Amino acid sequence: MTESPKFLNTPYGAYHAREIPPPDDELTGVGPGTPCGEYLRRFWQPVAFARDLTDVPLRLRILGEDLVLFRDGGGRVGLLQLHCAHRGTSLEYGLVGERGIRCCYHGWVFDVDGRVLETPGEPAGSRLKDTLCQGAYPTLDFRGMIFAYMGPPDRRPGFPIYDTFELPGYRLEPAARFTLPCNWLQVKDNSMDPVHTAFLHARSSGYQFTEAFGALPELEWQETSFGMIYVATRRVGDHVWVRVCDFMPPNVHQFTRELEEAVSEKTGSRPVIIRWAVPIDDTQTVNFEFAQIDDRWHLSPDAIARPGFGQSGDRPYAERQRRPGDYDAQSSQRPIAIHALEHLASTDKGVIMLRRIVRDGIRDVAAGRDPKGVLRGRAGVIRTLTQDTVLRIPPESDAAAERRLLRETGRNVVAGG
Amino acid sequence: MTESPKFLNTPYGAYHAREIPPPDDELTGVGPGTPCGEYLRRFWQPVAFARDLTDVPLRLRILGEDLVLFRDGGGRVGLLQLHCAHRGTSLEYGLVGERGIRCCYHGWVFDVDGRVLETPGEPAGSRLKDTLCQGAYPTLDFRGMIFAYMGPPDRRPGFPIYDTFELPGYRLEPAARFTLPCNWLQVKDNSMDPVHTAFLHARSSGYQFTEAFGALPELEWQETSFGMIYVATRRVGDHVWVRVCDFMPPNVHQFTRELEEAVSEKTGSRPVIIRWAVPIDDTQTVNFEFAQIDDRWHLSPDAIARPGFGQSGDRPYAERQRRPGDYDAQSSQRPIAIHALEHLASTDKGVIMLRRIVRDGIRDVAAGRDPKGVLRGRAGVIRTLTQDTVLRIPPESDAAAERRLLRETGRNVVAGG
Amino acid sequence: MTESPKFLNTPYGAYHAREIPPPDDELTGVGPGTPCGEYLRRFWQPVAFARDLTDVPLRLRILGEDLVLFRDGGGRVGLLQLHCAHRGTSLEYGLVGERGIRCCYHGWVFDVDGRVLETPGEPAGSRLKDTLCQGAYPTLDFRGMIFAYMGPPDRRPGFPIYDTFELPGYRLEPAARFTLPCNWLQVKDNSMDPVHTAFLHARSSGYQFTEAFGALPELEWQETSFGMIYVATRRVGDHVWVRVCDFMPPNVHQFTRELEEAVSEKTGSRPVIIRWAVPIDDTQTVNFEFAQIDDRWHLSPDAIARPGFGQSGDRPYAERQRRPGDYDAQSSQRPIAIHALEHLASTDKGVIMLRRIVRDGIRDVAAGRDPKGVLRGRAGVIRTLTQDTVLRIPPESDAAAERRLLRETGRNVVAGG
Repeated sequence: MTESPKFLNTPYGAYHAREIPPPDDELTGVGPGTPCGEYLRRFWQPVAFARDLTDVPLRLRILGEDLVLFRDGGGRVGLLQLHCAHRGTSLEYGLVGERGIRCCYHGWVFDVDGRVLETPGEPAGSRLKDTLCQGAYPTLDFRGMIFAYMGPPDRRPGFPIYDTFELPGYRLEPAARFTLPCNWLQVKDNSMDPVHTAFLHARSSGYQFTEAFGALPELEWQETSFGMIYVATRRVGDHVWVRVCDFMPPNVHQFTRELEEAVSEKTGSRPVIIRWAVPIDDTQTVNFEFAQIDDRWHLSPDAIARPGFGQSGDRPYAERQRRPGDYDAQSSQRPIAIHALEHLASTDKGVIMLRRIVRDGIRDVAAGRDPKGVLRGRAGVIRTLTQDTVLRIPPESDAAAERRLLRETGRNVVAGG
Repeated sequence: MTESPKFLNTPYGAYHAREIPPPDDELTGVGPGTPCGEYLRRFWQPVAFARDLTDVPLRLRILGEDLVLFRDGGGRVGLLQLHCAHRGTSLEYGLVGERGIRCCYHGWVFDVDGRVLETPGEPAGSRLKDTLCQGAYPTLDFRGMIFAYMGPPDRRPGFPIYDTFELPGYRLEPAARFTLPCNWLQVKDNSMDPVHTAFLHARSSGYQFTEAFGALPELEWQETSFGMIYVATRRVGDHVWVRVCDFMPPNVHQFTRELEEAVSEKTGSRPVIIRWAVPIDDTQTVNFEFAQIDDRWHLSPDAIARPGFGQSGDRPYAERQRRPGDYDAQSSQRPIAIHALEHLASTDKGVIMLRRIVRDGIRDVAAGRDPKGVLRGRAGVIRTLTQDTVLRIPPESDAAAERRLLRETGRNVVAGG
Repeated sequence: MTESPKFLNTPYGAYHAREIPPPDDELTGVGPGTPCGEYLRRFWQPVAFARDLTDVPLRLRILGEDLVLFRDGGGRVGLLQLHCAHRGTSLEYGLVGERGIRCCYHGWVFDVDGRVLETPGEPAGSRLKDTLCQGAYPTLDFRGMIFAYMGPPDRRPGFPIYDTFELPGYRLEPAARFTLPCNWLQVKDNSMDPVHTAFLHARSSGYQFTEAFGALPELEWQETSFGMIYVATRRVGDHVWVRVCDFMPPNVHQFTRELEEAVSEKTGSRPVIIRWAVPIDDTQTVNFEFAQIDDRWHLSPDAIARPGFGQSGDRPYAERQRRPGDYDAQSSQRPIAIHALEHLASTDKGVIMLRRIVRDGIRDVAAGRDPKGVLRGRAGVIRTLTQDTVLRIPPESDAAAERRLLRETGRNVVAGG
């Protein structure tokens, strides 16, 4: 509703609206030393799934930095700068050893923390190896997802434990990974923009999820202690369906599986997917997912690891034109979406709130403060709100009253009522 | 004969001629706001064939601008800026409707003139849609070719009607489209450079057209009221063949089909091809052709739409090396030909005249005047001169007299004698 | 041992070592007018093998310059600037004639020295062709390798004749050509870095050569009158194997075939490979090899022309990760290795010496002096030192004495003892 510098309001007026301003660098640049890059580095970020680690090193690019990930014979995981400290040969060609990794070129060995264990060409008694380190980042293998902390060593935060990591009847699994050729922020904008589910995932493309998604929801966004939520409340016959999703800054969100048909009552159903959008660099983003799996779904490992419909770019262009998905809608907003060209509307309140939280965090970091979401000390389990709740409530006869009813119902569910 | 700043004149002297000056930006830059870009935008430019429009939108890049073209259910053609005014998602994934096009992401609908018809996520009574427009350009479907006007709305010119659009015994058809990986101007230089037909299309590659093209013509160029022509007059046995071709600024030319064998008399034969060279951007150019078709040729639609020999880059490199065509000669002059490195000769008089007309037009636009070729008011049909005329005239015995004879014959034909 | 501005010496310290300084332009830039580019241009450089010349021209890029190479009907070889002096069309589409090459576009003909032989479109009596030249470089076909001199015409040096060009029992043949996607200097660094043979070519990848290469050698480097050598002396059972290799600035080195098993005595065995690393541009390098071939090896022409194991990038990534070769180790040091990030060690003495020789040569050229290696007048045959010598010498019982023994043995071999 703001942020749009000037409106074009003449038909056939493209000639007067050809200027393309630059992106908002403060919110979108992710390289070392950039405001947003330093902000994102204050949090643990997933860099790979444990299942991806084999006997050879895995080359990665994360936040504009070239890295190599490996698990040594002792089971320890190392995340090192890609180029060997000696003469720069890539450690992706290194030999993973019982302890650390050996550069292929001259045989120097580095431990998972970057310490030099061997410089075999040097004379006996050489102290060279004690005087330098390969650049390394600390890692953490949580339930099969490898996280790294790439920020200043003295600001390492606690690892966040969400209440949705443990849900009775479900088991948390590493699920899909998929890459979009665009900036991370537009991938995340999408998470607090529930109205798109009624168009992109229902009316524009045919019903990608359940038919219930096609009803336009009554919407609300609320800032929470750890982030923000949206509440989308829909009328489905005699039922009211309240869908709540969480955004946890800087780049995490969770949502319930798109299975809800809203035909019978249920309270606080939470088979979540939790998704991190990790910048590869300014114009590429990789999503990593955890999913809660119900064994009764009988999903194969392949099915669990497969991205949802339209999330990846592997479909033919002709099909993507006819049935566009999230990949197409998000990545075609340009490599980096230009906020100055947007015309935000009332449905974009969530996007505006999310960007404000991100901008506040960036400025907190720049000012030397911890941003929202960083954990210190004994944090405990974080209580989130993501859920599907379906209540049997007959409709009001009057449209305005019905809208009030939906909004009140949503608020009550969030308030735990 | 001019324009060459310094001549290298020592054998084995490459060491002294390694500097590569920049291109002549005034004549070659086509983006919004550039002198040449604004000049080209003062004319109707083809952007697609009508036959290319299907039920999904067509993404285009024209003059450095990203656009989407579609025909809605009402048969109206829209040319809109690619990125949705709301949050920038590409309209190439939009849904073409009964009226206008609907963005896949949040369902906003735009009319062919850019007006917003629906913003479905907004509250009832929202006036948002009345306050803004998607950038649009006017279009025109002329005989199956879609033209757009991308210049200032208040300077929209008339659409030029050439006398060759209607020729007894022929029918005008959209013909080939083909792209060259180079700047538009070197594609157009070629059109007023008839001596190349005696080399590139005859001696260098074997006879690509008729053998008559192998004779070196007596050449002349003349500026006309609407552009310029060349007159190429050749001796073929007892006949004299006068070939005339038109250049209509800024980027159109026409020529007769390369069928002439010059073995019997004919006057003003005109089965033309009319070709626009439209910049995609500074280093890519797409040619659009109209062709006059004689039904007695029994050409299939595929044959009509197929580019001529050597016009496109789809042949193997080994074959292009042995039998180069226009594509190879033109695009290998560098992505943007460097005029400062040229050594123009007497055969380049037409190229020099063409560039002067273009430069004058560019400077006219910069000075607020209409450039040559822009039509205002009732323009009527434009009489062009393109033709093949073959006259039975015995040769002169003396070479100088023969040259005078050829030149006079060409001039008489042009003068309508 | 020097050149490293600051050492990272904290584990998990990558956050403090993210800065990537620029390459050392003085040693790595190769374009026209750059210090290193001008230095390299003071020497004859291979540009192709004679076997690559067919009836069509060969397009080349050497030292950042676009060129075309051809052999005309008279057997003379021409190396011309790629773009025709007339209007810039690439001569790769030219017609190689009985004398010179004819541009496809307008038929101008250029001799191998760049002189214009014909401008057929010009009027009889035109003097245009006498007033200008196509840029050309002198060439030389030596034993099937085409060399060019791309430096200032008045500084053309003699062609170096190495004593290894003639070896009894062998015949010199053009052998492999292969390209690396990186700067020339890191390709050449490798040549004076013999310790890598014990890792990359033995321990890291399995034994790519003989098992004898797996023994860590006693190393020494010496500057010579024409360049430098390394001496690698290894204990193999009761034998001592002395391997000597030459570097001849600016970008040549030679080495013995990696066949030595060191199981019986031999003196001065010299079946060499001589390799030039020629910059295509700053980030691509092509190696050209001469090889001495023994007919008793019964090598096919294909086998002679094939690059050695791991020298080229044609193996699958998965295989290169498990068995890396020179291609992987060298090209993964980044497109241009960053010297400021290196931590050179005692094994890098040869690299340091090589770079010093190169830098001295660059500065000599900048100061108007001939650099080391340039030949003037009657140079005679250059005596090089490359060889395998194996001597039966029992080991010393004491490690220090054994090291002294190896070093002395190496020195004696080099001294001709």
